[in-house]
Amino acid sequence: MTNFKSLLENYKIIFFDAYGVIKNYKGLIPGIEKTFDWLREQEKSFYIITNDASRSPELLADVYQKAGLYHITPDKIISSGMLAKEFLDLKVKKGLVAYLGTEDSAHYIEHPGLDTLPLQQMSEDNINDITALVLLDDEGFDWMDGLNKAVNLLRRRTIPAIIANPDGAYPMSKREVGIAIGGLSYMVEKITGRKFIRFGKPDSQIFMFAMEHITQFHPEIHKRDILMVGDTLHTDILGGNKFGLDTALVLTGNLLPEDYENRIISTGIAPTYICQSAVIERDILD
Amino acid sequence: MTNFKSLLENYKIIFFDAYGVIKNYKGLIPGIEKTFDWLREQEKSFYIITNDASRSPELLADVYQKAGLYHITPDKIISSGMLAKEFLDLKVKKGLVAYLGTEDSAHYIEHPGLDTLPLQQMSEDNINDITALVLLDDEGFDWMDGLNKAVNLLRRRTIPAIIANPDGAYPMSKREVGIAIGGLSYMVEKITGRKFIRFGKPDSQIFMFAMEHITQFHPEIHKRDILMVGDTLHTDILGGNKFGLDTALVLTGNLLPEDYENRIISTGIAPTYICQSAVIERDILD
Amino acid sequence: MTNFKSLLENYKIIFFDAYGVIKNYKGLIPGIEKTFDWLREQEKSFYIITNDASRSPELLADVYQKAGLYHITPDKIISSGMLAKEFLDLKVKKGLVAYLGTEDSAHYIEHPGLDTLPLQQMSEDNINDITALVLLDDEGFDWMDGLNKAVNLLRRRTIPAIIANPDGAYPMSKREVGIAIGGLSYMVEKITGRKFIRFGKPDSQIFMFAMEHITQFHPEIHKRDILMVGDTLHTDILGGNKFGLDTALVLTGNLLPEDYENRIISTGIAPTYICQSAVIERDILD
Amino acid sequence: MTNFKSLLENYKIIFFDAYGVIKNYKGLIPGIEKTFDWLREQEKSFYIITNDASRSPELLADVYQKAGLYHITPDKIISSGMLAKEFLDLKVKKGLVAYLGTEDSAHYIEHPGLDTLPLQQMSEDNINDITALVLLDDEGFDWMDGLNKAVNLLRRRTIPAIIANPDGAYPMSKREVGIAIGGLSYMVEKITGRKFIRFGKPDSQIFMFAMEHITQFHPEIHKRDILMVGDTLHTDILGGNKFGLDTALVLTGNLLPEDYENRIISTGIAPTYICQSAVIERDILD
Repeated sequence: MTNFKSLLENYKIIFFDAYGVIKNYKGLIPGIEKTFDWLREQEKSFYIITNDASRSPELLADVYQKAGLYHITPDKIISSGMLAKEFLDLKVKKGLVAYLGTEDSAHYIEHPGLDTLPLQQMSEDNINDITALVLLDDEGFDWMDGLNKAVNLLRRRTIPAIIANPDGAYPMSKREVGIAIGGLSYMVEKITGRKFIRFGKPDSQIFMFAMEHITQFHPEIHKRDILMVGDTLHTDILGGNKFGLDTALVLTGNLLPEDYENRIISTGIAPTYICQSAVIERDILD
Repeated sequence: MTNFKSLLENYKIIFFDAYGVIKNYKGLIPGIEKTFDWLREQEKSFYIITNDASRSPELLADVYQKAGLYHITPDKIISSGMLAKEFLDLKVKKGLVAYLGTEDSAHYIEHPGLDTLPLQQMSEDNINDITALVLLDDEGFDWMDGLNKAVNLLRRRTIPAIIANPDGAYPMSKREVGIAIGGLSYMVEKITGRKFIRFGKPDSQIFMFAMEHITQFHPEIHKRDILMVGDTLHTDILGGNKFGLDTALVLTGNLLPEDYENRIISTGIAPTYICQSAVIERDILD
Repeated sequence: MTNFKSLLENYKIIFFDAYGVIKNYKGLIPGIEKTFDWLREQEKSFYIITNDASRSPELLADVYQKAGLYHITPDKIISSGMLAKEFLDLKVKKGLVAYLGTEDSAHYIEHPGLDTLPLQQMSEDNINDITALVLLDDEGFDWMDGLNKAVNLLRRRTIPAIIANPDGAYPMSKREVGIAIGGLSYMVEKITGRKFIRFGKPDSQIFMFAMEHITQFHPEIHKRDILMVGDTLHTDILGGNKFGLDTALVLTGNLLPEDYENRIISTGIAPTYICQSAVIERDILD
Repeated sequence: MTNFKSLLENYKIIFFDAYGVIKNYKGLIPGIEKTFDWLREQEKSFYIITNDASRSPELLADVYQKAGLYHITPDKIISSGMLAKEFLDLKVKKGLVAYLGTEDSAHYIEHPGLDTLPLQQMSEDNINDITALVLLDDEGFDWMDGLNKAVNLLRRRTIPAIIANPDGAYPMSKREVGIAIGGLSYMVEKITGRKFIRFGKPDSQIFMFAMEHITQFHPEIHKRDILMVGDTLHTDILGGNKFGLDTALVLTGNLLPEDYENRIISTGIAPTYICQSAVIERDILD
């Protein structure tokens, strides 16, 4: 068990997962603002690396701002939705992009040259104009209708299918989880035999995207200078490890203090460090 | 390509799949009544072996009766739901059985000693009384609500989870399919890490159940005397083959005349015979 | 934790798994002979239900005989290899059956009308005569040669591929496991896209095979009269449960006393009873 | 069907897959040297992006040199083994790295501070010193011994397990394939429940690695300037597409002219362009 503050001293840039590290279903992790104050004082940079494609970085940052975390501005947020956006920009230059998700999530597919279509509005009139399918969020549509339309679209059209959040489920409360859009996509893949393009941790592309962003301003930064902090072994830790980053597991989210050792052993996914939480405890003399 | 009638001469009992063989989304396969008339004349017995657990054998037979197929009586129908019923009878003798499906499908879980609960009515008050979960049909519940309840029930309670129809999807029209309850169950398994007990083709247990039924009346019947007729390689044909039955693939359902050869080669699932359809063409002199 | 002897009182027939229940890598489980003596005294019948297709029931029984377990005679042994044998008898009536395994394991594919071929002897001269592939045992062939031949055979010929032991691995010592033929078959399936026909627990067909055997002599026996005793959740217990039998988990094999509760919760596979071992402790006054 | 030469005009850098594009089991694709001559004349850059970790870039280039392809020098080769090397450098700074593969493949794990161990030499004396397992090649070890050692090592030690070539199989001749180390790794993953870190196409990290290499010399290069040329849908084309590159499928390898349309439709993986081959046909007036 490593002290989180002493760990931070060794890195120039910190990557934080959002859910389970900075916030949870009850709101902000108590005391987390001290961590961001300290990072500011120390002139250390940070990014939020999140699989949340339910809304734009602006709207995601807005939630932190309202909760008093003023340092988390939109430019600090790297979401998996931004990779879907880049993909469409590079590979799907025109046509109609169908999506499953809320209107807020559609932010990521709005591009010059592309029209967007909530999948529930797919019909015989427009199915042949659709040039890509993007799964953004588990809300904003009736599951029976939307999932059946996704299956039938992919059976009829050879188009890229993108999943902008690979998580299978997310915590809803202390005891309950909710099925996420990544979980729904497994089923569509299995039934259609088609493979979704998955953006988001543990896949390296989101870390690479963040690195490209950083090296614009700090070309000297090396992977060795970055610490990935997360609560989930098979996304944050596996992804960070594979990309070559040092990783710190915190116990304020998915994994409980009594479980983490067993889970590390059974999955074989080992963080570089384990910390109680991402909260810096600052004493009087600090 | 084998003539279906000449094939039937060699068997004492015929097992028919329902969907794609006797009926499809438009109603009965035209001419199929001649097959059942001929079987009656020849005093050959038959059973419908179906993964349809959406309603009782009585209600399933009723549809055939109304369409003029008077020989298909409830005792001729072996549905995967009947295996779920037997399982509950043997293994879950008391408590509250939660289910996903229509009220008609709940027929299969109604037992003396068991109470039934549509999963949408699960709450903190009754979750600890639930002794089994049975997935019967893709209709009768809101998918978001029902599937999330299924996931959370299985995370909290160590109880048997049964899927009474393993099919992933079913044809809705010439071009469209619908996701079936078996498809939904994949996702629940993947998210929870729990394994459903699956009843229905291709699993042998439904064929064994039919055999037990038959040998009560015809103890001399051997597997060699039975032909399984189906339209789907990975349920009807794989299951029939594995159980040791001769199998006949018909081309009136899932597989088109131009596709079946490729599919047999790519899956490695080969029927004993291939027939145009299960309709007996009877000429004037017959 | 249930006393094994008091449990046996309630059943007429006992099904035992072999490895981890009656014997382990060190030999017989100490004291297990008392259980079989007692069953004989009580005129209770028993069967060994095993996924071991490495040798014939005669040779399997021979090992018990030599170790002093005189009650375990060949007719008491139901092995998954016997189902492969029945399948070939019903479905592959002629031609050349290629196999991976030792010469002893080839017992299960020797049939009138069939020739057998160790897969290592496959060549351009005989590949077109092969009518089935059977994977029997992980020994008796060079893995690189044999597995490559299996992949290429299935790519070129549309023939049934049978796996007569679905276990992925087996214990070799207190700390070590060995990859079993079922484990090797996963890879062949994944690379070829072809589906093996799997015989053996947890699949119901081996239990059904045993039942057919029993009801020849004891037509009055019902599933309720049988107890399945095993050490492995996902084969013995899952299979027994699904078939409708009561099940007893013993802690002398795969699962340790400190682990079994966690494993039952994480897999959702719950035995009807849990016992220390299948050894009956008989006291002086017994 | 696009003319390959006219396609090349639109890109500044070309990524080539090796096997099926530049060479096959018979040697170089006839005429391929003309393509590399033309690229040189046009001052277009190229890289070979290969999942071959069986030997160092030097030894890989040597084969091309000997065949007369003098433009393919070691610095033009980006192999998946180089990512394994980078991972060890960043994440496994000390200890003993065990590997499966030939001595040539061990090039990728030789680092200051690390000792290497052919897995066949694992014993009770050194198992606790092993800090990573790397699967490099399917040759150089006895499969039964090596794969069993890999399974038991991962059961006992919580260490990173890396697969430096994710391909399941590779073509050996017109009709035959060979199981590759990626295929063997599936089995080890399935038996141990442990997840390998996979480097190589279709994963983005190899493309990113090539990009980092390129931008050192050509910082102005954008993904839009690069064309990925490959013969395999689920590695070259899927990987190139996901990374945001334009992709060209050639028909000199895995996919035959009569099959490619069906395979694109069934997998949903569509290249930007389809070309007969990567050979530039140059006529007299060219």
